Parts: sequence; C-alpha cells; structure tokens
Amino acid sequence: MDPRRFERKGVPEVIFAEHKSAEQLNQSVAQLLESAGYAIVSRVSPLQIEALRGSLPDVTVDYQDGARTAWLFLPGYRHRRTGGKIAILTAGSSDWPAAHEARIVAEAMGCEVDIVSDVGVAGIHRLFGPLRRLLDLGTDAIIVAAGMDGALPSVVAGLVPIPVIGLPTSVGYGHGGGGEAALMSMLQTCAPGLSVVNIDNAVGAGASAGLIANAIARARSGETEEHESF
Amino acid sequence: MDPRRFERKGVPEVIFAEHKSAEQLNQSVAQLLESAGYAIVSRVSPLQIEALRGSLPDVTVDYQDGARTAWLFLPGYRHRRTGGKIAILTAGSSDWPAAHEARIVAEAMGCEVDIVSDVGVAGIHRLFGPLRRLLDLGTDAIIVAAGMDGALPSVVAGLVPIPVIGLPTSVGYGHGGGGEAALMSMLQTCAPGLSVVNIDNAVGAGASAGLIANAIARARSGETEEHESF
Amino acid sequence: MDPRRFERKGVPEVIFAEHKSAEQLNQSVAQLLESAGYAIVSRVSPLQIEALRGSLPDVTVDYQDGARTAWLFLPGYRHRRTGGKIAILTAGSSDWPAAHEARIVAEAMGCEVDIVSDVGVAGIHRLFGPLRRLLDLGTDAIIVAAGMDGALPSVVAGLVPIPVIGLPTSVGYGHGGGGEAALMSMLQTCAPGLSVVNIDNAVGAGASAGLIANAIARARSGETEEHESF
Amino acid sequence: MDPRRFERKGVPEVIFAEHKSAEQLNQSVAQLLESAGYAIVSRVSPLQIEALRGSLPDVTVDYQDGARTAWLFLPGYRHRRTGGKIAILTAGSSDWPAAHEARIVAEAMGCEVDIVSDVGVAGIHRLFGPLRRLLDLGTDAIIVAAGMDGALPSVVAGLVPIPVIGLPTSVGYGHGGGGEAALMSMLQTCAPGLSVVNIDNAVGAGASAGLIANAIARARSGETEEHESF
Amino acid sequence: MDPRRFERKGVPEVIFAEHKSAEQLNQSVAQLLESAGYAIVSRVSPLQIEALRGSLPDVTVDYQDGARTAWLFLPGYRHRRTGGKIAILTAGSSDWPAAHEARIVAEAMGCEVDIVSDVGVAGIHRLFGPLRRLLDLGTDAIIVAAGMDGALPSVVAGLVPIPVIGLPTSVGYGHGGGGEAALMSMLQTCAPGLSVVNIDNAVGAGASAGLIANAIARARSGETEEHESF
Amino acid sequence: MDPRRFERKGVPEVIFAEHKSAEQLNQSVAQLLESAGYAIVSRVSPLQIEALRGSLPDVTVDYQDGARTAWLFLPGYRHRRTGGKIAILTAGSSDWPAAHEARIVAEAMGCEVDIVSDVGVAGIHRLFGPLRRLLDLGTDAIIVAAGMDGALPSVVAGLVPIPVIGLPTSVGYGHGGGGEAALMSMLQTCAPGLSVVNIDNAVGAGASAGLIANAIARARSGETEEHESF
Amino acid sequence: MDPRRFERKGVPEVIFAEHKSAEQLNQSVAQLLESAGYAIVSRVSPLQIEALRGSLPDVTVDYQDGARTAWLFLPGYRHRRTGGKIAILTAGSSDWPAAHEARIVAEAMGCEVDIVSDVGVAGIHRLFGPLRRLLDLGTDAIIVAAGMDGALPSVVAGLVPIPVIGLPTSVGYGHGGGGEAALMSMLQTCAPGLSVVNIDNAVGAGASAGLIANAIARARSGETEEHESF
Amino acid sequence: MDPRRFERKGVPEVIFAEHKSAEQLNQSVAQLLESAGYAIVSRVSPLQIEALRGSLPDVTVDYQDGARTAWLFLPGYRHRRTGGKIAILTAGSSDWPAAHEARIVAEAMGCEVDIVSDVGVAGIHRLFGPLRRLLDLGTDAIIVAAGMDGALPSVVAGLVPIPVIGLPTSVGYGHGGGGEAALMSMLQTCAPGLSVVNIDNAVGAGASAGLIANAIARARSGETEEHESF
Repeated sequence: MDPRRFERKGVPEVIFAEHKSAEQLNQSVAQLLESAGYAIVSRVSPLQIEALRGSLPDVTVDYQDGARTAWLFLPGYRHRRTGGKIAILTAGSSDWPAAHEARIVAEAMGCEVDIVSDVGVAGIHRLFGPLRRLLDLGTDAIIVAAGMDGALPSVVAGLVPIPVIGLPTSVGYGHGGGGEAALMSMLQTCAPGLSVVNIDNAVGAGASAGLIANAIARARSGETEEHESF
Repeated sequence: MDPRRFERKGVPEVIFAEHKSAEQLNQSVAQLLESAGYAIVSRVSPLQIEALRGSLPDVTVDYQDGARTAWLFLPGYRHRRTGGKIAILTAGSSDWPAAHEARIVAEAMGCEVDIVSDVGVAGIHRLFGPLRRLLDLGTDAIIVAAGMDGALPSVVAGLVPIPVIGLPTSVGYGHGGGGEAALMSMLQTCAPGLSVVNIDNAVGAGASAGLIANAIARARSGETEEHESF
Repeated sequence: MDPRRFERKGVPEVIFAEHKSAEQLNQSVAQLLESAGYAIVSRVSPLQIEALRGSLPDVTVDYQDGARTAWLFLPGYRHRRTGGKIAILTAGSSDWPAAHEARIVAEAMGCEVDIVSDVGVAGIHRLFGPLRRLLDLGTDAIIVAAGMDGALPSVVAGLVPIPVIGLPTSVGYGHGGGGEAALMSMLQTCAPGLSVVNIDNAVGAGASAGLIANAIARARSGETEEHESF
Repeated sequence: MDPRRFERKGVPEVIFAEHKSAEQLNQSVAQLLESAGYAIVSRVSPLQIEALRGSLPDVTVDYQDGARTAWLFLPGYRHRRTGGKIAILTAGSSDWPAAHEARIVAEAMGCEVDIVSDVGVAGIHRLFGPLRRLLDLGTDAIIVAAGMDGALPSVVAGLVPIPVIGLPTSVGYGHGGGGEAALMSMLQTCAPGLSVVNIDNAVGAGASAGLIANAIARARSGETEEHESF
Repeated sequence: MDPRRFERKGVPEVIFAEHKSAEQLNQSVAQLLESAGYAIVSRVSPLQIEALRGSLPDVTVDYQDGARTAWLFLPGYRHRRTGGKIAILTAGSSDWPAAHEARIVAEAMGCEVDIVSDVGVAGIHRLFGPLRRLLDLGTDAIIVAAGMDGALPSVVAGLVPIPVIGLPTSVGYGHGGGGEAALMSMLQTCAPGLSVVNIDNAVGAGASAGLIANAIARARSGETEEHESF
Repeated sequence: MDPRRFERKGVPEVIFAEHKSAEQLNQSVAQLLESAGYAIVSRVSPLQIEALRGSLPDVTVDYQDGARTAWLFLPGYRHRRTGGKIAILTAGSSDWPAAHEARIVAEAMGCEVDIVSDVGVAGIHRLFGPLRRLLDLGTDAIIVAAGMDGALPSVVAGLVPIPVIGLPTSVGYGHGGGGEAALMSMLQTCAPGLSVVNIDNAVGAGASAGLIANAIARARSGETEEHESF
Repeated sequence: MDPRRFERKGVPEVIFAEHKSAEQLNQSVAQLLESAGYAIVSRVSPLQIEALRGSLPDVTVDYQDGARTAWLFLPGYRHRRTGGKIAILTAGSSDWPAAHEARIVAEAMGCEVDIVSDVGVAGIHRLFGPLRRLLDLGTDAIIVAAGMDGALPSVVAGLVPIPVIGLPTSVGYGHGGGGEAALMSMLQTCAPGLSVVNIDNAVGAGASAGLIANAIARARSGETEEHESF
Repeated sequence: MDPRRFERKGVPEVIFAEHKSAEQLNQSVAQLLESAGYAIVSRVSPLQIEALRGSLPDVTVDYQDGARTAWLFLPGYRHRRTGGKIAILTAGSSDWPAAHEARIVAEAMGCEVDIVSDVGVAGIHRLFGPLRRLLDLGTDAIIVAAGMDGALPSVVAGLVPIPVIGLPTSVGYGHGGGGEAALMSMLQTCAPGLSVVNIDNAVGAGASAGLIANAIARARSGETEEHESF
C-alpha cells in the first residue's frame, strides 16, 4: 500500500481484494479506515464483504449485489465536496459494475457524479437528450463505459466539447471478447478528445476524471491545493 | 478463374490484378470481356490501367484516381437491371475506394446503388437524415464501410429493419490499425442484423448485398431465376 | 433491455442469462412474456431453466439437454408465420447448440427453418444431396455453423446462388481453438456471397438470415411492413 | 472534413496528408486556411511540404526536418491564448515528432506548451528536477511521449497530482515493437491518473490535454465558452 | 550450408537467396553444383537468376516467370528416379509458386510429381474427378497448397486413405491474411491424416512428402538405403 | 460420428468425450464396439471411465491414471498387425498423455509402437543412443511430442532420414504457454522432413504416422489394400 | 527428473507439483531428499503441502501462506554458502510469491539473498535509497520482479553497473494482463544490461542470477569448480 | 544520448543510425569519438558508412558487407582489456550480423570474444566439440544467437554450467517469423540458466554478457571498479 498517495497525488489508495485472505483484507481495511476514515476495496467477493461486515460491525458499507467494489466508512465520516462534476455513461446493463467502481473513486475525491445507463449504440437515438442535459448542468468530464463493440465513447467524444475518458469493460465473447474489441475501437477513435484506460480499470478512469474535475473546480473557486512533493 | 461463376452463383468473376504482369492481366481481361461483355479488375494500379487502356482502345474504363478497382466494358454493353436497391454508407473519406469497389460489383449484378459518404461517428448527428431518406426509398440492403473505430455499422444496424453488411476498411494505424479494430468492433456489435466480411473485402460485401437485393427484387417481380447446378 | 426492438428492427429482444440471479432472470422473462407473449433466453444454465419452470408453471419451455438457449411461451401463444425459408447446416455434432439458438431466433421472426446436421468437410461427399434438396425447396438464406477448420461455409457458398451466413462456433482446442480458426477461415473465404457473424453469435446469425428471408417473403406476398422510426 | 469541429468541440480539424495528391492536399489546406486562418497537416512528407510552399507562397509554414506535421498560417494570423498550460515530456530523442505534433494541436487550441526532452527511464534520476519545475509553474496537464518500454508515463503519473496523458510512440523493434509494448505498459500502469491515446496519436493527446487545460483556464478566468450544439 | 545433408537425411540442401549478393549466391551455387551436380535456389529474384545465368553459361536453369525457386543442373546431369509418386494440389492460381518449389524438391529426391491446379473450395465439385484419378495412379503422398481460407487440405484429407501434407501459402489479406488463416484452418482440421508445414515452406512440404514416398518406393522394390550416421 | 471412416480412410473413428453425458458417451461407445470390436475415447475423465466400466462390465479398458484417452475392447478382440513401425519420443514427463493417445491410435491401425520418454533438450546428450537404436530397428516414422520450447522435434528431424511428425503439447505457462511456443518453434524448424499437427492433436499425429508406416509395411509385404471410394 | 542436473549445471532440480497426485509428489520429493538432502517444489498447493507434511514428519518445510513454492530439508541439512550476493526487488506486494521462489533457488545454490519489496514506479522516489545500499553491500546480481506495467526493471537497469534479470509476474488484467505487458516492456527496455526470463519463471531467474553470482564469488575466492561433462 | 553511461553503467553508448540524416549521424559520431575515442553505430546502412568515411577520413572503421553495425576509432585508440571471456554461438549463417554487433559491444567493454558459427539444431552433433573447447578455455558467459526455431540456446543451456544469454534474431518467415518463434521458444526453455533479450537486441546481449564477464574478471584480478552514482 501507498498510504501517502492521497496527500501526494490527490487520488485515494484502493485495496485489491482478490487473492487476499479474510485476515489480510481485514487488516488492510482497518489500516486505511484509521488513516483516512474510509476504505475502498475493489475485486471484492460477496463472501469477503460478509466477513468484513462481521469483523467491522460499526462500519457503513456501500455495496450492492453484483458489484465488485465496496466503500466502507467509519461512523461520522463526512464526504469531501470539491464541486467537481463528473458524468458516467454506460452502453449496456453489464457495464454497471465498472460505472459503480468509477463513481466511488470519483466521489471519494470529492466529485459529484451523475450516472446515465444503457444509452449504447444499439439504439443511439436515445443518447442525445441525456447528453444535452449533462452539458447544460456544467459537467466537467465524462467517463463512458462500454464493452462489446466499444462504439459509444467515440460517438460521445464526437459531440461534446469536454474531456472524455473511455472505459472498456470485459463484456462480450468470441473474437475481441473480454473487452479487447472495445479497447481497440476506443484507441482507434476518429473523435479527438477521447483518452482511455485499460479494460475494467474503473479506478483509473475515476482517478483521471476526478483529477480533471477537481482542477477545474479549484480554478472556479480560486483555491489552490498543496500536495506533498516527491 | 471460374468463368461459370455468374451462371452458377449469380456473382461476377473478379480479376485480382496484384502481382500480375501486363500481359497476364491483358489476357485475363480480354477473356472475360469476350464471355461477359465486361470485366472487373480489383487491386489494380494506375500503371496497369494505363497499359489496359493502351492495349484495349475501344473498351470503356470506369476508373478514378485513387480507386483500386476498374470496370471495363465492350462497346455497346448494356447494364443489367434487376430492380434490387443497395445503399453504401462510408464513415470517412478514406473509405471510398472500398465503397467504389462494392458499388461496381453490385451494379454488375444489376442493382441500383446509392452512396452516402462521410457520416461517421465523429459527428453522428449528421447520419439520421440520410438514413431515413434511404429507408423511404425502399433500400433492400445496406453496406456500411468503416475503418478506424468501426463504430458506424453498429449504429446503423441498431436503427434500421433491413440487412446490414459491415465492410471494415484498412484505415487507421497503431493498435488495431489496418482495419483490425474495425473488424473486431463490427463482430462484437450489440446490434442484431449485422453480418460482416473481411477487411477491404468490398467484392464480398457487394456480392452478399447483391444476392440479397436481387432475391427481394425477383420476389417483387414474381420472376424466378435459373442457375446452373453443381 | 430494448423492449421496442421488434417494432423498430423486426428482430426480437433476447435475454442474456449469464451472471443473472434467479430473481433478475425471472423478472426479465416475465416482462418480455407480458409484452410479446414469448421470451428467448440465451446462455442459460440447466439450473436457471429449472428455476424458471418453478416460478412460471404455466409457461411452455422449448429447451433440450445441452442447449444454451430456451424459448418460453405464454399459454395460447400463436407462432408468427411470414413464409421466409431458412436452412441451417452444421459441420459436426458439437455445433448443434448454435444451430438450435439460431433456429429459435429465426422462428420467432416467423421463418420456417430446416436443419441439416453433420455435413462437414471430413466427408464432403455427404453434402451435395442435402444441399440440392434445400435449393429445390426454395430456401431463401442459409446459415452454416462450423467450428475447428471452419471450412464448410466456404464450400457451401461456392456452390449456391443465395446468401450464406457463416456462424463460427467455439469448437476446437490448440492454435486457433475456441472458434478463432473457424472465424478466420470464413473471413478469408474464396467464395463470394458469404458474410459472417462472431464466434457463437447464433442470435446475430438468426437475425441476419431472418431479415433477409422475411424481406424476400414480404416481396413474394406483395405486402409491406411498417416499422417504428428512430 | 468536419469544418464545424472547432465550433462544436473546441478542437481543430487536422488534415491527414498521407495518400493525398498534391492537388487534393492543396485544396484541403486552402479551404481550412480560408475558414480558420491556419491549417494543420499531419503525416505530411517533405515533398508535400515543398509543393505546399510552392503553391501557397504567402503562407507561413511551421515545419522542421524529420517532423511529420506542419502548421500553416495566413499572413497576419494571431495566435489564440487561453491561459491553459501544458507540458510535454519525451523519453527519448525519437519521440520528438510526436511531441511536435501534440504541441501544434495544443497551441492551436490556445495553450502554452513546455517541452522537456529525453528524460526517459534509462537515467531516471534526470527526471525529478524538470518535473518539480513544471509543477511549480502551474502546469495543468502533462503529455508523456514514450516508445520502447513505455515506462516513463507510469513514473510521472506516480509522482504528480495532475492529469497525465500517455502517448505511446512507434519506436522500437522486435517483440512489442512499433509502440505495442509502450501502449500495453501504459494501459497496465500501476499509477492512477494516467489515461492514454493510441500509438502515435499525438493529435488525440494534444486535443485531450488541450480540452483539460482550457477548461481549467476558463474556470480560472471566470469565463464561459459557448459551443454549437449537435 | 550443410553439404552432407543429402547423405545423412536424404533431403537436398537448398540455398536461400534472399539478402545474398550476386557474388555470395554465385559461390554457393557453384559449390553445390560441384558436389551434387545440381543446385536448388529458393527465394530467388529475376535479377539474381539473370546474374547466375550470366556467370554460369553452361548450366541449365529450370525457372519460370513469377516463380521464387530455381533448379540448376550441370550439363549431363541425370535425374534420380526412386519410383516414389507424389501429387501436388493447389486451391488457386496464386499457389503455384509454392507448388513449383515443392515439385523441385521432391523431384530432386527422385520422386515423380503430378500437379493438379485450381481445385479449391470455391467450386469443390471440380475436385472429385482428379482426386479419384490420382488414387487410381497409386499416388503415395499428397501435398495440398492453399492460401486464404485453407479449406482444401481438410476436404482432401477427409476423402483419401494416404498421407496428406498441408502447405499454407501467404495468399490473402485482411484478418488472417498472409497465410495465417490457412495455416490455422489446417491445424484445426477435422480430418485425420493431415499434417502441415509452415506458411510458404514448400521446401519442407516437398521434403516430408519425398521422404514418405521414397520409403514406400524402397519397400516396394525391396531395396534398403544406407545413410550416414550422426 | 463417421462410422465408415476406417473403411474409407484407414483411420479409426475416435469419440470425443468432453461435454458428453454418461448416457451419450455410453451409447457412442456401445455403437463403435459393436461395429469395430473396439472404441477409442479421447478427452475422457476418470469419472466417465468409471461410468463406462460400470455399464460395460465385460469390456477391457486400456486406461491409466492421468491419461486423457481410453481404449476399450470387446472380449476376444484380436489386434490388427500390419508390420508398420512407429516410435514416439517425448521431451518431458508431462508429454506422456499425448504419447499415450498417439500410441493407441497407431496401434489400432495395426502398427507396432515404441515409446522413448524424457529425452528433451535440457540434456540433449541423452538422445543419441536411443535414436540410433530406433533407426537400427527399422522404424518407419517418428512422432516427437514436446511442450514448452518445442525444440526436440527439430533436433530429431535434423538427424534422421525418415519422416518426423511434430506433436506440440499444451505444457508450459507464460508467454508462448499452452503449447503455442512449441507449435511455433516446430513450424519454424530449420530441419527438413518435419511436419506438424496442432497442439495436443495426438489423434492426428497417430493417424498421420500410422498412414505412413502402414503404406511402407504394405509395400514391404507386396500387399495392396482396398478402400471405399467417396 | 534430471537427478544429475546439479552436478552438471550447478542448478538444482525443481519438482513441478501441478497435476501431480499426492503419491507421485511424495515419491519425487523423497527421491530428491535422499540424493540431495533437500527438495524444492514449485506450483505446490496448500493441500499438497499438508500431505507432504503428513507423510514426511521429520522434514523441515520452508513454506508460507500464499506462496507457490516450498523448500524441504532433511534433519541436519547444512546450507551451502558460496559467498555470491543476490538482491531481489519487487514492484508490488503481489510479486512476492515470485520473489520467494527465486530466493529459494538462489539460496539452494549457496547465495546470500536480500529482498527489497514494494519499490515500484507508482512512487519511484522510494527506490533510490535501497538501491544505493545494495550497491554498497557489493551485490553481484539483481533480480527485479514486476507485473502490470513492468517498468521497474528498466529503471533499475538504467542506474546500476551490475547484471539485472527481469522477472515478469502474472499480475494485472485487461490488455497485456497476466504478465504480457510486463514481459514486453522489459524486452523493449531502453536500458542495456537487462536480460529477462518468462512470466513467473522465478526458477529461471534464480538460476541465472545464481550462476552469475557464484561465478563471481568463485573468482573472488580463487577457487575453481568441477562439473560433470555432457 | 547518455554520454555518462559508460561511467555510470560500464556499458558504452550506442548510436542508432536509422532515420538519422548524414549530418545528424556525423555530429553524433564526432561527439562520441571526442569523448570516448571510439563510437559504435548500429542499424547503419552502407550509404551512411560511406558518408562517415568521407567526412572522417582519419578514423578507422570496423565494418563488413552485410553487417548492420560499425565501430569507429580515433587514430591511436587502445582497446580496453578486462580479461572477461565471452563466447558467441550462432545457429545459422543469417545470424552473423547479430553476432557481429554483440561482439563489438562486448569488445568495447574490454572482453575477449570467441565466435562459433553455424552449430544449429539441423545438425546438432556438430555442437559438442566446440562447446567443450569453450568450457575448457574458461569462458565466463555465452551468447547464443538463433532465429527460426530458436532451439539452440535451450540445447546449450542444458549442457553448460555458466550463464547463457539467448539472442533471438529476426530470421524466418511465416507463422512465428521475424524472430517471434525464436524468442518464444527461448522464453519457454526447459533449461535453467538461460535469460534472453529481445529480437535482434544484440547490443543488450553484448552488454549483459559483458557485465557478467567483467564482474568475474574483476573478482579474479582482485580489483574493484568505481562507478558514478545516480
């Protein structure tokens, strides 16, 4: 773990739960809760969640069935609010675990997050209304999560004048399955202003969007932020 | 060459010009002209076209700068007309050689072909008008040519109630370049009703669309068509 | 879900069962049954089928051991009949789950479907008889399902004057296993008139063939069909 | 071409010169010069530059030996200045054509651009000084161009609290050559806050960084910017 | 070079001409001519052939336009005759350089070689007659050269009771182009009795078929053959 | 199943047990036992073997722990003996299941099979003695099974004057694991006379070697063999 | 097994436990314990360890939770000490099983091993102190284990004047996951003096580093070592 | 360029000539000659060599036809001699440019280099004599250059008790061509003590072997060497 990451980078440390024993996970979570008041756990299983709830009874757990990420808070934890505004669009219903994880990271960085689900290219006429609404609301950055054909991020980036982060998801089988086609299509985008993260790297998407939105929000408020140097 | 292909399959033989000497090419073209009244030459270079024009002065050549395909006719050749209607959409201007080649094949099969250029996803709002017009005109099948992100065929197939053939083109560089991302994204489409051909296989796209449109046109007219058996 | 897909596209919505809980699947199926009178469920497990049968006792379930797709009907549901005629050929016995899934989609679109099994290239002399019979019957489009070497679709498309849809299946191991060789060989076909869908995308193959056959059938009957616009 | 791109997206149209004839290129450049006062030409050859200089004698050309991008201005053109601040780091000397192209795009968007060359991981101790200086200067976003091992963007993103765009370059041969290893390593980064564009997509990197820096600069100045809707 | 290869292995040494200067090539050819009475040169260009003819005026050169292999003999060289019988089938006309090279190697090993051209799967009904004739003639082994879909070797191996060597050729473009699809399809064959060599490795195909046919021919004649040990 | 395969091809039908239910497998095995007196089952699990033993108590089962193939005989079955001689070499101990499977196929074809284990290139000096012994015994064809680096078949084919079949096995992990490196290295062999089958395709290796050895044995004995035509 | 490996190569034999039954593993371990006094078992599961402890109660087992390698000693075994000095650096905590395995191999060869954990490029400023200390201690060779971006070995090799062995680990998911990006980045290193082994091949990394360090140590002591010849 | 590399790393800077103009190359070479007394130029063309000879008439140039690397010395330059001993083995004659480049780097580091050519696995019995001689001579490290099947390094590493560096070369075509099979086979080696560099990275192979041999040589002589710190 990199416990000074938030101070140096403005991005929270995230615990990777896969392959961790209940004891190891419990210890890492407890350490982060103590230092930051909250802990984000990714690639977490329902069984691991159950174990954490058992050993940390006072802690609030933000987790839903089917998710792969959990957010735990100490009692009385107060959410950071920077004023940064992020939207997360998903192409299909299978993309929501990625959207959920990116939302947690961005909210932990103090951003306000708006999720718009199921506006993929199998019915692209449903996209325009929500997209115009997001621009009217003053969204600072957009994350677009898509698997399979990965076409949605290019469509969005072709329309909006703000930074777009493409988040390919491991949805789809056959040639180009597991997110490879989605990633490749996003990298080959014909729309400028789209940058991408790796397949299922929702933590990275949330962090990049959060850094962008927070920098804009600080500029809006006239504040500056001090970071630890390296 | 398969000189009975048209009689058996309803699809014209196409001469592949790459690696052929002027003499070899001239001989193949002359043979097809004699049997069918026309000849289609793909992967043909400007130098080869010049040589063909020199040795076959009476022949009309349908060829433009930058194309990779030529269509040659004997004097007095009369185009077949089946009543089949095909539309070819391209995502960007680099896709036109593929569109041009598919058009020639489909027209040689007797179809009427409508080309709509540059309606790619970098500005998807420009797509809807032309697409509605094509449906109003009674288009039987649509070929969508796209390189780079290959997103346009999925968008089109998500909207229209007719068969769509995706034609990936070898446009784009870097990871997924040369048409690989376009092909992969089309194969991973979340829109039903899209089938694809290989990268730059415009002959195959034209043939598939032509077979579909001609079958519909024959059914409209109540005619039947006899083919040679195998 | 895209509940207006049939009205807009003429292709039924299909429920993807993988990773869905019994409750989620039950809810999706019930919703589709109510709106359409039937529901198609793909990537469904025997356990999920059992659960559906338990919670929906009045519903008829078209499902067989080893299949990955089920078709459920409300009591009294009457099958659509358009007059479109589709044939599905399989190379080997492992391809039948794909053929079964494509059949359900095409039948749900109102087509009549003929399945010819085990005519692969390990004994190609067995192919010709059935193929001539299908042509005599007036088949509008052919789906050819094949894994491993994927050679059968090219052989078929080299012989018949109607559209062929190649459906690679995830059969085979080693280099090119999981359907990659089959897909690649179909994309590289030397026979014009063959277009393909992704590995195991039987829903897509059924939808493409169904759109083709239904368009021909409508033209035969002189009817027109109204679709919702986008 | 998408002549309203700047009005809609805030990103300039870029002319792709490869495969264009002198006449085609001249016409595209003239059209952009007339509408915008400048034109950016990528993948341009020295011969094409010479031809452009000959046919457009009054135009200023920002181009250097070995570059693949040129920026042409009408006499009297005044550069846009938004106050956005971008830094471009390169790992090695072979990365400068990419850096040069990204610089042009970002400057055309009104940003101030600082280039720091040759701070790659073969001598990482040389990186820290320049990086601290850039942070002190108030850099809004950093582009890091690297080929071969692609390690530099991860190192930078591990240290700085601002958005980093990884720009893999097609430098290197053997396994993972042509930028594939660089791209893959950046996608696999263990540092949050790094998003990437495709290999050699310097236009995309410049556009993404420019959108970020300009949004921050507008927030600093309290201005808002109007864009054309879609 | 491995000048004792024939004595140890029963397979001739072959000179790889690519990247060799005229002088280097001339020297290698002269050395082999002296020791064996003939020399096989692969990957040879027309210019190299011209140079060899100039410097070795008395030597007979078996070479044709478009071939990539040449066979040179000293005056008075008498061909070896073992009685082994090999057939080479090609799927398309682009496969003949590979067939030509395999023929030279097999003939240099003393086999009789029968070439049957253009019996690929785009018209498979043309295959049966020639194939039955070859079996009636007592062919010992069959080489099947095919590019693109690579389907022909599986079809042949499904029918004949003798060993088949698949020789994929670098014919075809797009996904699986350059012979990759052909190789993969052959490796995934559903027909037992097919083994393969690498793309364009016609020397290897000729050597394997030659070893098989010669072993059978020796057994027929009751002779034994002495080889140098290792 | 292809029940006439042996009569047409001289190669036995093999039942692929994977994904088959106990009932399906039992039925296929019973059918083959009845027609041929024996049945070969590949990709069979210990549980499936146990079930077969239970339902076919009189049948002899040739199967060992860790194997993936079984050979079942009716009581009184007499092995075919053609006089063909095959050797199977393995590089390491993990290659024995492949060797075991190839042995069963070749023995079912009537060949005598000699297995030499663990002579891989990690100690190549151990290879020469056994190899010379095999040549002295009059071996007709050699199968070389190897995973990981796949180097052994090239070493063997560089030394012996008889046909060699390379059989890559899915042994090894990391880059090139699962047999991909082994296959690739064999295809790239610098030794003529080596042809290969796909990864783990021991049935194919046994069939190819069996066809070769049987043709030689028939020639030795002066017999001819009648096959069914296609 | 290659029981004379240590005598010939100076590298211990390692037992690969995967797919071995308890009985097989027990037998191999017992054989090595008898001949060498110790046994190294890789890819071993906790269940296998438990079984070994049960059947070999007097043996000391060096194994920790989460490791994939165990080292077993007979009572009274005395560690070899050559004076060779190796350091193992890991980029992240997931790399420790690889580091642990390499340590065992190197220690079995008699080297002294120093492990420095978690100095990856997500916080590269933490690397310099430990690295200078290792050089001051007279380290002979460094193994750097890294997954994901695989950037650390290039950074280290850019700084130190001693041989570096890159050990990519199968850490990371998405494009380039499973260690492929790490391996590729190390192969593309811009730092001279870095050679690599395959993904997770910690045995190979330990053996290479051990051979280097032991050769240096022998030279320091003026000793020579006798090996068995081949 | 990294002019202090030798002082920090003990490895010479190498100039990459590809894409450099005559003027750029001349300037880089002159700079290195002045600081070090010599300059190594890789990926250099005959034309570039001619230009260098013209502009630097007093300089000695170590270059041969067909090489891709040159070594230039100022008059009176005296070669460094450390006492380190390196052997370079090549599998085939096409591997010599790589061997030549590795030799130059190792000699520039002060090592004595012995080259043994053409001992590849197509005739492995020729390897043993030279290999025993090298061990008798006290070789410190071996570089094995091989393309195509890449089998030689595994064979060598299976026999010798000293570090082996595998150097895959871009020799071979078809599947696994360009050195990919060679690299993959070396990474999958079943012989411990083999580490590898990327395809054609002869500079890296020479540097790694040079660092090893020099460390051993220094230990033999009892000297220590001071390096600049980072």
